Amino acid sequence: MTNPPPSPATRVVGSSDFDAPIDSRYFEDYHVGAVYEYGYVSVSDDDIITFARAFDPQPFHVDRDAALAGPFAGLIASGFHTNALFMRLFADHFLSHVASLGSPGCDELRWTTPVRPGDTLRLRTRIIEVRPSNSKPDRGLVRTTGDMINQNEDVVMSLTIVNLLRRRPS
Amino acid sequence: MTNPPPSPATRVVGSSDFDAPIDSRYFEDYHVGAVYEYGYVSVSDDDIITFARAFDPQPFHVDRDAALAGPFAGLIASGFHTNALFMRLFADHFLSHVASLGSPGCDELRWTTPVRPGDTLRLRTRIIEVRPSNSKPDRGLVRTTGDMINQNEDVVMSLTIVNLLRRRPS
Repeated sequence: MTNPPPSPATRVVGSSDFDAPIDSRYFEDYHVGAVYEYGYVSVSDDDIITFARAFDPQPFHVDRDAALAGPFAGLIASGFHTNALFMRLFADHFLSHVASLGSPGCDELRWTTPVRPGDTLRLRTRIIEVRPSNSKPDRGLVRTTGDMINQNEDVVMSLTIVNLLRRRPS
Repeated sequence: MTNPPPSPATRVVGSSDFDAPIDSRYFEDYHVGAVYEYGYVSVSDDDIITFARAFDPQPFHVDRDAALAGPFAGLIASGFHTNALFMRLFADHFLSHVASLGSPGCDELRWTTPVRPGDTLRLRTRIIEVRPSNSKPDRGLVRTTGDMINQNEDVVMSLTIVNLLRRRPS
Protein backbone atom coordinates (compact mmCIF):
# COMPACT_ATOMS: atom_id res chain seq x y z
CA MET A 1 0.00 0.00 0.00
CA THR A 2 1.55 3.29 -1.04
CA ASN A 3 -1.04 5.64 0.36
CA PRO A 4 -1.17 7.38 2.78
CA PRO A 5 2.56 7.97 3.44
CA PRO A 6 4.08 6.30 6.50
CA SER A 7 4.42 9.38 8.69
CA PRO A 8 1.74 11.94 9.51
CA ALA A 9 2.10 13.91 6.29
CA THR A 10 -1.23 15.48 7.13
CA ARG A 11 -1.99 18.28 9.58
CA VAL A 12 -4.62 20.28 11.41
CA VAL A 13 -6.67 22.09 8.77
CA GLY A 14 -9.49 23.41 10.96
CA SER A 15 -9.46 26.48 13.17
CA SER A 16 -8.74 24.59 16.41
CA ASP A 17 -7.27 21.43 17.89
CA PHE A 18 -6.87 19.72 21.25
CA ASP A 19 -4.92 21.65 23.88
CA ALA A 20 -3.03 18.46 24.81
CA PRO A 21 -0.53 17.09 22.28
CA ILE A 22 -1.38 13.63 20.99
CA ASP A 23 1.49 12.04 22.97
CA SER A 24 0.14 13.28 26.30
CA ARG A 25 -3.59 13.28 25.61
CA TYR A 26 -6.02 11.43 27.90
CA PHE A 27 -9.76 10.90 28.36
CA GLU A 28 -10.02 14.22 30.22
CA ASP A 29 -8.89 16.11 27.10
CA TYR A 30 -11.94 15.09 25.05
CA HIS A 31 -14.82 17.56 25.44
CA VAL A 32 -18.36 17.29 24.10
CA GLY A 33 -18.98 19.73 21.27
CA ALA A 34 -15.34 20.12 20.21
CA VAL A 35 -14.94 20.12 16.42
CA TYR A 36 -11.58 19.56 14.70
CA GLU A 37 -10.47 19.07 11.10
CA TYR A 38 -7.45 17.21 9.72
CA GLY A 39 -6.17 16.56 6.20
CA TYR A 40 -5.51 15.96 3.46
CA VAL A 41 -5.41 12.45 2.02
CA SER A 42 -5.89 11.73 -1.65
CA VAL A 43 -6.50 8.59 -3.64
CA SER A 44 -5.20 7.74 -7.10
CA ASP A 45 -6.74 5.18 -9.43
CA ASP A 46 -3.85 2.84 -8.56
CA ASP A 47 -4.58 3.20 -4.84
CA ILE A 48 -8.25 2.44 -5.44
CA ILE A 49 -7.51 -0.62 -7.58
CA THR A 50 -4.80 -2.00 -5.25
CA PHE A 51 -7.05 -1.83 -2.19
CA ALA A 52 -10.04 -3.24 -4.02
CA ARG A 53 -8.14 -6.15 -5.58
CA ALA A 54 -7.28 -7.25 -2.07
CA PHE A 55 -10.57 -6.58 -0.34
CA ASP A 56 -13.49 -5.55 -2.57
CA PRO A 57 -12.97 -6.71 -6.16
CA GLN A 58 -16.23 -5.40 -7.63
CA PRO A 59 -15.92 -4.19 -11.25
CA PHE A 60 -16.49 -0.52 -10.40
CA HIS A 61 -13.56 -0.67 -7.93
CA VAL A 62 -10.97 -2.68 -9.91
CA ASP A 63 -11.63 -2.38 -13.65
CA ARG A 64 -11.40 1.06 -15.32
CA ASP A 65 -13.31 0.02 -18.47
CA ALA A 66 -16.06 -1.89 -16.69
CA ALA A 67 -16.37 1.01 -14.25
CA LEU A 68 -16.94 3.50 -17.10
CA ALA A 69 -19.88 1.44 -18.31
CA GLY A 70 -21.12 0.78 -14.76
CA PRO A 71 -23.52 2.43 -12.30
CA PHE A 72 -21.07 5.16 -11.25
CA ALA A 73 -19.75 6.01 -14.76
CA GLY A 74 -16.16 5.59 -13.60
CA LEU A 75 -13.89 4.03 -11.02
CA ILE A 76 -14.82 4.68 -7.36
CA ALA A 77 -13.08 3.70 -4.13
CA SER A 78 -14.43 0.83 -2.05
CA GLY A 79 -16.36 2.20 0.90
CA PHE A 80 -14.07 0.11 3.09
CA HIS A 81 -11.09 1.95 1.57
CA THR A 82 -12.65 5.29 2.49
CA ASN A 83 -13.23 3.93 6.00
CA ALA A 84 -9.54 2.99 6.21
CA LEU A 85 -8.52 6.51 5.11
CA PHE A 86 -10.82 7.89 7.81
CA MET A 87 -9.02 5.72 10.37
CA ARG A 88 -5.61 6.93 9.21
CA LEU A 89 -6.46 10.59 9.81
CA PHE A 90 -8.25 9.67 13.07
CA ALA A 91 -5.23 7.71 14.36
CA ASP A 92 -2.67 10.30 13.28
CA HIS A 93 -4.40 13.34 14.75
CA PHE A 94 -7.39 12.64 16.99
CA LEU A 95 -6.84 9.44 18.94
CA SER A 96 -4.32 9.68 21.75
CA HIS A 97 -1.06 7.88 21.03
CA VAL A 98 -0.70 6.90 24.71
CA ALA A 99 -4.24 6.35 26.02
CA SER A 100 -6.14 4.47 23.30
CA LEU A 101 -7.63 1.16 24.49
CA GLY A 102 -9.44 0.21 21.30
CA SER A 103 -12.99 0.59 20.05
CA PRO A 104 -16.12 -1.48 20.59
CA GLY A 105 -17.61 -0.33 17.29
CA CYS A 106 -19.30 2.18 15.02
CA ASP A 107 -22.85 3.13 14.13
CA GLU A 108 -24.59 4.98 11.32
CA LEU A 109 -21.80 4.41 8.81
CA ARG A 110 -22.91 6.03 5.53
CA TRP A 111 -21.27 6.31 2.11
CA THR A 112 -23.00 9.36 0.72
CA THR A 113 -20.91 10.41 -2.29
CA PRO A 114 -18.61 8.27 -4.47
CA VAL A 115 -14.86 8.79 -3.92
CA ARG A 116 -13.12 9.10 -7.30
CA PRO A 117 -9.46 9.07 -8.38
CA GLY A 118 -7.77 12.37 -7.50
CA ASP A 119 -10.20 13.27 -4.74
CA THR A 120 -8.65 15.04 -1.75
CA LEU A 121 -10.31 14.31 1.57
CA ARG A 122 -10.26 15.83 5.02
CA LEU A 123 -11.73 14.56 8.28
CA ARG A 124 -14.05 16.55 10.49
CA THR A 125 -14.56 15.17 14.00
CA ARG A 126 -17.19 16.23 16.51
CA ILE A 127 -17.16 14.78 20.04
CA ILE A 128 -20.74 13.94 21.01
CA GLU A 129 -20.40 12.03 24.31
CA VAL A 130 -17.79 11.52 27.02
CA ARG A 131 -18.48 9.23 29.95
CA PRO A 132 -16.23 7.69 32.61
CA SER A 133 -16.45 3.90 32.70
CA ASN A 134 -18.73 2.55 35.42
CA SER A 135 -16.81 -0.70 35.78
CA LYS A 136 -13.20 0.36 35.16
CA PRO A 137 -12.05 3.53 36.96
CA ASP A 138 -8.90 3.89 34.82
CA ARG A 139 -10.78 4.70 31.59
CA GLY A 140 -13.64 6.47 29.88
CA LEU A 141 -15.70 6.29 26.71
CA VAL A 142 -15.62 8.93 23.96
CA ARG A 143 -18.22 8.93 21.18
CA THR A 144 -17.32 10.91 18.07
CA THR A 145 -18.95 11.66 14.75
CA GLY A 146 -16.53 11.63 11.84
CA ASP A 147 -17.20 13.07 8.40
CA MET A 148 -14.86 12.64 5.44
CA ILE A 149 -15.29 15.64 3.12
CA ASN A 150 -14.01 16.05 -0.44
CA GLN A 151 -12.62 19.05 -2.32
CA ASN A 152 -16.17 20.03 -3.38
CA GLU A 153 -17.37 20.09 0.26
CA ASP A 154 -19.41 16.93 -0.26
CA VAL A 155 -19.50 14.58 2.72
CA VAL A 156 -18.37 11.28 1.19
CA MET A 157 -18.55 9.15 4.36
CA SER A 158 -19.79 9.59 7.90
CA LEU A 159 -19.94 7.43 11.00
CA THR A 160 -20.15 7.51 14.77
CA ILE A 161 -17.32 5.69 16.56
CA VAL A 162 -16.82 4.84 20.23
CA ASN A 163 -13.30 4.79 21.69
CA LEU A 164 -12.05 3.75 25.09
CA LEU A 165 -9.34 6.02 26.50
CA ARG A 166 -7.25 5.89 29.67
CA ARG A 167 -7.76 8.60 32.24
CA ARG A 168 -4.76 10.80 33.00
CA PRO A 169 -2.53 9.10 35.58
CA SER A 170 -2.74 10.94 38.90
CA MET B 1 -1.22 -6.59 0.22
CA THR B 2 -0.64 -10.32 0.14
CA ASN B 3 -3.84 -11.47 1.80
CA PRO B 4 -6.37 -12.65 0.79
CA PRO B 5 -5.19 -14.26 -2.47
CA PRO B 6 -6.34 -12.67 -5.74
CA SER B 7 -8.90 -15.28 -6.74
CA PRO B 8 -11.75 -16.68 -4.64
CA ALA B 9 -9.60 -19.18 -2.78
CA THR B 10 -12.44 -19.49 -0.31
CA ARG B 11 -15.67 -21.47 -0.62
CA VAL B 12 -19.09 -22.20 0.79
CA VAL B 13 -18.57 -23.71 4.24
CA GLY B 14 -22.16 -23.71 5.49
CA SER B 15 -24.88 -26.22 4.71
CA SER B 16 -26.53 -24.13 1.98
CA ASP B 17 -26.00 -21.38 -0.58
CA PHE B 18 -27.98 -19.36 -3.09
CA ASP B 19 -29.71 -21.32 -5.84
CA ALA B 20 -28.50 -18.77 -8.42
CA PRO B 21 -24.78 -18.69 -9.23
CA ILE B 22 -23.09 -15.40 -8.38
CA ASP B 23 -22.74 -14.47 -12.08
CA SER B 24 -26.49 -14.67 -12.68
CA ARG B 25 -27.82 -13.62 -9.30
CA TYR B 26 -30.30 -10.74 -8.95
CA PHE B 27 -32.40 -9.00 -6.30
CA GLU B 28 -35.07 -11.72 -6.59
CA ASP B 29 -32.57 -14.37 -5.41
CA TYR B 30 -32.16 -12.79 -1.96
CA HIS B 31 -34.69 -14.15 0.55
CA VAL B 32 -35.31 -13.02 4.13
CA GLY B 33 -34.12 -15.58 6.64
CA ALA B 34 -31.54 -17.25 4.38
CA VAL B 35 -28.29 -18.01 6.22
CA TYR B 36 -25.03 -18.82 4.40
CA GLU B 37 -21.42 -19.31 5.48
CA TYR B 38 -18.20 -18.73 3.51
CA GLY B 39 -14.52 -19.10 4.38
CA TYR B 40 -11.79 -19.21 5.31
CA VAL B 41 -9.48 -16.20 5.47
CA SER B 42 -6.53 -16.01 7.83
CA VAL B 43 -4.29 -13.20 8.92
CA SER B 44 -0.58 -13.38 9.69
CA ASP B 45 1.32 -10.89 11.83
CA ASP B 46 2.81 -9.45 8.62
CA ASP B 47 -0.68 -8.95 7.15
CA ILE B 48 -1.80 -7.19 10.33
CA ILE B 49 1.24 -4.91 10.44
CA THR B 50 1.15 -4.08 6.70
CA PHE B 51 -2.49 -3.03 6.80
CA ALA B 52 -2.09 -1.08 10.03
CA ARG B 53 1.03 0.80 8.90
CA ALA B 54 -1.02 2.13 6.01
CA PHE B 55 -4.29 2.82 7.79
CA ASP B 56 -4.28 2.39 11.58
CA PRO B 57 -0.76 2.71 13.03
CA GLN B 58 -1.64 2.27 16.70
CA PRO B 59 1.07 0.43 18.71
CA PHE B 60 -1.05 -2.69 19.29
CA HIS B 61 -1.51 -3.04 15.50
CA VAL B 62 2.01 -2.29 14.21
CA ASP B 63 4.61 -3.00 16.94
CA ARG B 64 5.00 -6.56 18.25
CA ASP B 65 6.89 -5.51 21.41
CA ALA B 66 4.67 -2.58 22.29
CA ALA B 67 1.64 -4.79 21.65
CA LEU B 68 2.87 -7.41 24.12
CA ALA B 69 3.00 -4.76 26.85
CA GLY B 70 -0.28 -3.18 25.71
CA PRO B 71 -3.97 -3.56 26.53
CA PHE B 72 -4.44 -6.72 24.41
CA ALA B 73 -1.20 -8.50 25.49
CA GLY B 74 -0.20 -9.04 21.87
CA LEU B 75 -0.65 -7.85 18.32
CA ILE B 76 -4.26 -7.56 17.08
CA ALA B 77 -5.68 -6.65 13.68
CA SER B 78 -7.14 -3.21 13.11
CA GLY B 79 -10.92 -3.40 13.22
CA PHE B 80 -10.89 -1.79 9.78
CA HIS B 81 -8.73 -4.69 8.54
CA THR B 82 -11.30 -7.17 9.85
CA ASN B 83 -14.00 -5.14 8.08
CA ALA B 84 -12.02 -5.38 4.83
CA LEU B 85 -11.71 -9.16 5.21
CA PHE B 86 -15.48 -9.29 5.75
CA MET B 87 -15.94 -7.40 2.49
CA ARG B 88 -13.67 -9.79 0.61
CA LEU B 89 -15.73 -12.83 1.57
CA PHE B 90 -18.96 -10.88 1.01
CA ALA B 91 -17.88 -9.77 -2.49
CA ASP B 92 -16.51 -13.17 -3.50
CA HIS B 93 -19.51 -15.24 -2.46
CA PHE B 94 -22.61 -13.28 -1.43
CA LEU B 95 -22.90 -10.13 -3.50
CA SER B 96 -23.97 -10.65 -7.09
CA HIS B 97 -21.19 -10.11 -9.63
CA VAL B 98 -23.65 -8.71 -12.16
CA ALA B 99 -26.32 -6.85 -10.15
CA SER B 100 -24.52 -4.95 -7.38
CA LEU B 101 -25.20 -1.21 -7.43
CA GLY B 102 -23.24 -0.28 -4.30
CA SER B 103 -24.14 0.25 -0.67
CA PRO B 104 -25.52 3.26 1.19
CA GLY B 105 -23.96 2.09 4.46
CA CYS B 106 -23.76 -0.11 7.54
CA ASP B 107 -25.15 -0.05 11.07
CA GLU B 108 -24.33 -1.70 14.37
CA LEU B 109 -20.73 -2.45 13.46
CA ARG B 110 -19.16 -4.16 16.47
CA TRP B 111 -15.67 -5.50 17.15
CA THR B 112 -16.36 -8.05 19.85
CA THR B 113 -13.22 -10.20 20.06
CA PRO B 114 -9.63 -9.26 19.10
CA VAL B 115 -8.33 -10.82 15.85
CA ARG B 116 -4.84 -12.22 16.42
CA PRO B 117 -2.11 -13.52 14.06
CA GLY B 118 -2.99 -16.98 12.77
CA ASP B 119 -6.72 -16.61 13.30
CA THR B 120 -8.89 -18.25 10.66
CA LEU B 121 -12.18 -16.49 9.98
CA ARG B 122 -15.40 -17.35 8.24
CA LEU B 123 -18.38 -15.16 7.35
CA ARG B 124 -21.95 -15.94 8.29
CA THR B 125 -24.60 -13.90 6.46
CA ARG B 126 -28.28 -13.64 7.32
CA ILE B 127 -30.65 -11.72 5.06
CA ILE B 128 -32.99 -9.65 7.24
CA GLU B 129 -34.87 -7.43 4.76
CA VAL B 130 -35.57 -7.31 1.05
CA ARG B 131 -37.56 -4.46 -0.45
CA PRO B 132 -38.11 -3.27 -4.04
CA SER B 133 -37.10 0.36 -4.54
CA ASN B 134 -40.02 2.79 -4.48
CA SER B 135 -38.33 5.29 -6.76
CA LYS B 136 -36.33 3.06 -9.14
CA PRO B 137 -38.18 0.04 -10.57
CA ASP B 138 -34.97 -1.62 -11.81
CA ARG B 139 -33.59 -2.34 -8.33
CA GLY B 140 -34.22 -3.41 -4.75
CA LEU B 141 -32.65 -3.12 -1.33
CA VAL B 142 -31.22 -6.07 0.61
CA ARG B 143 -30.29 -5.73 4.29
CA THR B 144 -27.95 -8.38 5.65
CA THR B 145 -26.34 -9.13 8.99
CA GLY B 146 -22.74 -10.32 8.69
CA ASP B 147 -20.76 -12.05 11.44
CA MET B 148 -17.07 -12.86 11.17
CA ILE B 149 -16.35 -15.93 13.32
CA ASN B 150 -12.96 -17.29 14.38
CA GLN B 151 -11.68 -20.85 14.84
CA ASN B 152 -12.93 -20.84 18.46
CA GLU B 153 -16.48 -19.92 17.37
CA ASP B 154 -16.12 -16.41 18.77
CA VAL B 155 -17.83 -13.69 16.76
CA VAL B 156 -15.00 -11.21 16.18
CA MET B 157 -16.97 -8.63 14.17
CA SER B 158 -20.59 -8.08 13.22
CA LEU B 159 -22.50 -5.49 11.22
CA THR B 160 -25.66 -4.87 9.26
CA ILE B 161 -25.11 -3.75 5.66
CA VAL B 162 -27.54 -2.49 3.02
CA ASN B 163 -26.93 -3.29 -0.65
CA LEU B 164 -28.71 -2.14 -3.77
CA LEU B 165 -29.18 -4.86 -6.38
CA ARG B 166 -30.62 -4.86 -9.87
CA ARG B 167 -33.81 -6.83 -10.50
CA ARG B 168 -33.58 -9.70 -12.98
CA PRO B 169 -34.01 -8.37 -16.54
CA SER B 170 -37.35 -9.45 -17.94
